[in-house]
Amino acid sequence: MPAATAAASTARYDIDGFLKAIGDVPVTTDMQRVRLRSRDYFWYSPVLNKLLRGKSADVVATPRNEADVIAVAAACARLRIPLTPRGAATGNYGQAVPLEGGVLLDLTNMTAIEWQKPGVIRCEPGLKMNDLDAATRPQGWELRMHPSTKRMATIGGFVGGGSGGVGSVNYGGLREPGNILCARVITLEEKPRAIELRTDAAQKINRAYGTTGIITALEMPLAPAWPWIDVIVAFDDFFDALQLGSDVALADGIIKKLITPMIWPIPQHFNAVRAHCPDGKHVIFAMIAEQSLESFKAILGNRGTITYEQPHDDAPGKEPLYEYTWNHTTLQALKVDKDITYLQTIFPPESNVTALIASHEMFGEEVMAHAEFQRRLGRTNCSSLQVVRYTGDERLWEIVRQMETLGIRLSNPHSYILEDKGARVPSADMQLAFKHESDPHGLLNPGKMSRWTAA
Amino acid sequence: MPAATAAASTARYDIDGFLKAIGDVPVTTDMQRVRLRSRDYFWYSPVLNKLLRGKSADVVATPRNEADVIAVAAACARLRIPLTPRGAATGNYGQAVPLEGGVLLDLTNMTAIEWQKPGVIRCEPGLKMNDLDAATRPQGWELRMHPSTKRMATIGGFVGGGSGGVGSVNYGGLREPGNILCARVITLEEKPRAIELRTDAAQKINRAYGTTGIITALEMPLAPAWPWIDVIVAFDDFFDALQLGSDVALADGIIKKLITPMIWPIPQHFNAVRAHCPDGKHVIFAMIAEQSLESFKAILGNRGTITYEQPHDDAPGKEPLYEYTWNHTTLQALKVDKDITYLQTIFPPESNVTALIASHEMFGEEVMAHAEFQRRLGRTNCSSLQVVRYTGDERLWEIVRQMETLGIRLSNPHSYILEDKGARVPSADMQLAFKHESDPHGLLNPGKMSRWTAA
Repeated sequence: MPAATAAASTARYDIDGFLKAIGDVPVTTDMQRVRLRSRDYFWYSPVLNKLLRGKSADVVATPRNEADVIAVAAACARLRIPLTPRGAATGNYGQAVPLEGGVLLDLTNMTAIEWQKPGVIRCEPGLKMNDLDAATRPQGWELRMHPSTKRMATIGGFVGGGSGGVGSVNYGGLREPGNILCARVITLEEKPRAIELRTDAAQKINRAYGTTGIITALEMPLAPAWPWIDVIVAFDDFFDALQLGSDVALADGIIKKLITPMIWPIPQHFNAVRAHCPDGKHVIFAMIAEQSLESFKAILGNRGTITYEQPHDDAPGKEPLYEYTWNHTTLQALKVDKDITYLQTIFPPESNVTALIASHEMFGEEVMAHAEFQRRLGRTNCSSLQVVRYTGDERLWEIVRQMETLGIRLSNPHSYILEDKGARVPSADMQLAFKHESDPHGLLNPGKMSRWTAA
Repeated sequence: MPAATAAASTARYDIDGFLKAIGDVPVTTDMQRVRLRSRDYFWYSPVLNKLLRGKSADVVATPRNEADVIAVAAACARLRIPLTPRGAATGNYGQAVPLEGGVLLDLTNMTAIEWQKPGVIRCEPGLKMNDLDAATRPQGWELRMHPSTKRMATIGGFVGGGSGGVGSVNYGGLREPGNILCARVITLEEKPRAIELRTDAAQKINRAYGTTGIITALEMPLAPAWPWIDVIVAFDDFFDALQLGSDVALADGIIKKLITPMIWPIPQHFNAVRAHCPDGKHVIFAMIAEQSLESFKAILGNRGTITYEQPHDDAPGKEPLYEYTWNHTTLQALKVDKDITYLQTIFPPESNVTALIASHEMFGEEVMAHAEFQRRLGRTNCSSLQVVRYTGDERLWEIVRQMETLGIRLSNPHSYILEDKGARVPSADMQLAFKHESDPHGLLNPGKMSRWTAA
């Protein structure tokens, strides 16, 4: 459980000196707007909501380019002002919330595409993922994976604060080798340096919440942009839904991007697609390549009924199914029921389905099963973002303890501490070591990396 | 071990009646040419060589189109003449060798492409896989997988007699759902029918050696045609080679098509690329997408040395690395050493590397380790085509028995019997059941499906 370590965010810093030092870099000092932009989607968690709701930066800087970033970083280092980078701030763990005030570095105006070649793009961090895909799709490419917030979120925010999502059923998460080709970062020093972190070195900044450097460019590998079909399948028996999900996830000849089983009553709140989610039925939301749809149906057989089948489209005004999956599942429930929260857990690889069923039998509708099939360390696995009826912190942690007896491990979504996310040890060690080099004064998003704060 | 069940191939059939019945379908009756075309590459196996070397059809028919196939099938059914279909006959198990004479149906002149759409092709069975890829690559597509004989072999022969190969590290074998979209077959009846076997129904003819129908069209799913790089890596320690192979196979973010570790002295016979295989070093031959090459090198680290790195090219006159892998590995050794044979085995999924090392320690250079990483039932696994110093059948089966104590299962390459290949039971049952429908007189490639022959 996270400790409330953050100090009050008062104007302890020389903000005037900062503003003078950065020249014409665009800033906002209007406190109402600064406070608003200091928030992310931590309010999904009643635990984080208590800890983070009052936190704010003192000023927001909005760099236009890398030179602006360098000016801001140099000023912060010299004046010892904390700096917290953010993209669209769609994360759920307070990744982009400044615990100790200071400067919020909003990178959403840095959206340039540096170059594209077949299967690779290099761009600035503020590029929205939907704009990125729109730019690459004419050449037949798209991002390998994206969060359910793709239509709002930036690529830099995803790499800095995210882990995987739609597409991870093929490629695993961003941590897997090959899923980030290069990250260019600016250090937080009096004389900031630009460092190109190629291949596995990019793990120094991947999901480090901006504690180890400011991303100014990313080189991302792309995937073939298949014509995807959004499919909803309804099931009488939740076990059949899980088993189909597992069968399809393990079928390497079937091209898919999303396999999301959800137990009834989760779909009751799915307004726009509610008509395709029959009362009392469990569902799978899936994205299947057109090429593989017939084979998908052959695997399905008569275990369930397809209630929805439409070409995928996430242009404005459209309803892509992925906005009912990953942590959007929780959001759809939260929109109508404020007593809802969630957990995030990883299942034992060879007994996904059994563990999910056991968990359902243990908790019933208090913990509503929602699984996301994905690859992890070269194996098909599922993680779960269970929708939980929240009755207090004590009960929440009791649920977690009981799940552990089933081999289900928590990746704690109710903590803003990096190390509570079950980060793989090699990455966490790399990040801690790199921070000594990139942020010697410990000014980058302070309070998030517990081992640094402790030392 | 296979029993020598085949009767002598004398002219027991009404070949004159057959020739009259089929009208202008092109045929060969010249016995020297008929005998030559009745052979496949079974001679890799000293066991099969003894059993099959005298076998021959009585006549070769070479249909130009499906109407010709129907004419031949009808005549064979009426006159009760066995019919054995073949493509390029590059198989190693006597798949295309007629055990009881009769008609050899050479489909290599049926090469038309019916249509292409993004990610799918429909074509006749005699199309060579290299010609297929040449036709789809301008649109950015290629076959998902192919055997090492791609430059000679036909797509129909692959589906009828093969199982997987280069590309199976991503998609598994042809047996995996989604890897064959449709097979059109002609039945062996007095009034032959055309049946479209879609999705999993295509397993009725996949690797059935033509015992269950004559393929006249195939609808195959395609894969993105990445710019592949052929890479050779040399290692001091064979364990490092295997471990790298496993690491890359499990790295879902790294796009690859081939990962083949081979122990020294296997590479000593690799003429054209011998200069890149240092004396005494173990090697990995790999195909890596250009996009992923840097990440591949990061995973390699300093465990081995890259000795060769060239854009993949399998146009005529070029030396694609895959022609040193899969069963071409055995061929390269056989070219210079007639006392060589091979085994084909499947490793226990979660202990690939351990089992391979244990096998090496058990047999030393008598059984030279050669592994092919691939996906199987949704998991990364490896199979092996070990190169074996042959000293007699008795010793060969003794080796097999000892391997079984390590959890290594044989997929017997020294048998022409379908059921000895470790076919998955559901497929074998489907094929047996379908044969009652498609070949009621038991004339298609007789002697290969042991449960039919027994009944």
